[in-house]
Amino acid sequence: MEKKIKMTPQRAAIMEYLDGNMSHPSADEIYTEVHKMYPMMSFATVYNTLDALKKQNMVWELSVDGDRRRYDPRTEPHDHLVCVDCRSIKDIGHNGHKCPSGDELKGYMILREHVEYFGLCPKCQRKRGMGGDG
Amino acid sequence: MEKKIKMTPQRAAIMEYLDGNMSHPSADEIYTEVHKMYPMMSFATVYNTLDALKKQNMVWELSVDGDRRRYDPRTEPHDHLVCVDCRSIKDIGHNGHKCPSGDELKGYMILREHVEYFGLCPKCQRKRGMGGDG
Repeated sequence: MEKKIKMTPQRAAIMEYLDGNMSHPSADEIYTEVHKMYPMMSFATVYNTLDALKKQNMVWELSVDGDRRRYDPRTEPHDHLVCVDCRSIKDIGHNGHKCPSGDELKGYMILREHVEYFGLCPKCQRKRGMGGDG
Repeated sequence: MEKKIKMTPQRAAIMEYLDGNMSHPSADEIYTEVHKMYPMMSFATVYNTLDALKKQNMVWELSVDGDRRRYDPRTEPHDHLVCVDCRSIKDIGHNGHKCPSGDELKGYMILREHVEYFGLCPKCQRKRGMGGDG
């Protein structure tokens, strides 16, 4: 049985900030915003709280951005579209896919799967002089 | 045009160590092993060299392990099977999958895709008392 999460004021503040947030902010960005509302909250508290929320599967920690971990309040299956230039991350649906052969997964128990699409967003294509609509 | 990579002694040493290495080692692990053969090579050199190799697409930097970046000398399309307990990473084939709808990708130029399967390896299932063959 999963232990029920204790909703401390710190957790509530961070979840309130993340609620509906689609920008996949980093711990730094979350700290900057939450600190404006709750000036007593330190970076260490924000970081440790994110870690606790992650362990309770209340946020996903994304590692698609090589430079910093990013956080996602959506924890139902979905995939990500990552711009390799501006590092923006867009949520997209998880459509499932052809599973690897049974031999390759032999003995493994699969818990979840996640697809990362790396590419160029329309804005960065234009910056590179490549067109790109939308 | 991609600039041709200059094969410095540092790059050659790291590529030699990584050649055929399927363990997806971290920068720390690469440093420990390469330093045994080339005691003059510092951690900073190893780290910077990995960064240069990554930019030239001669290694992939994997971010599937939340705790540390791991490196993969295979740069043709393939996916990864990650054990959430022991953090072992196994290469598996990339089988392609149903693409997201055109609307979701509107305007994006997709360069590559990567599937992460998170699960439990046979050894860690046994450790948890869950069986697991293979």
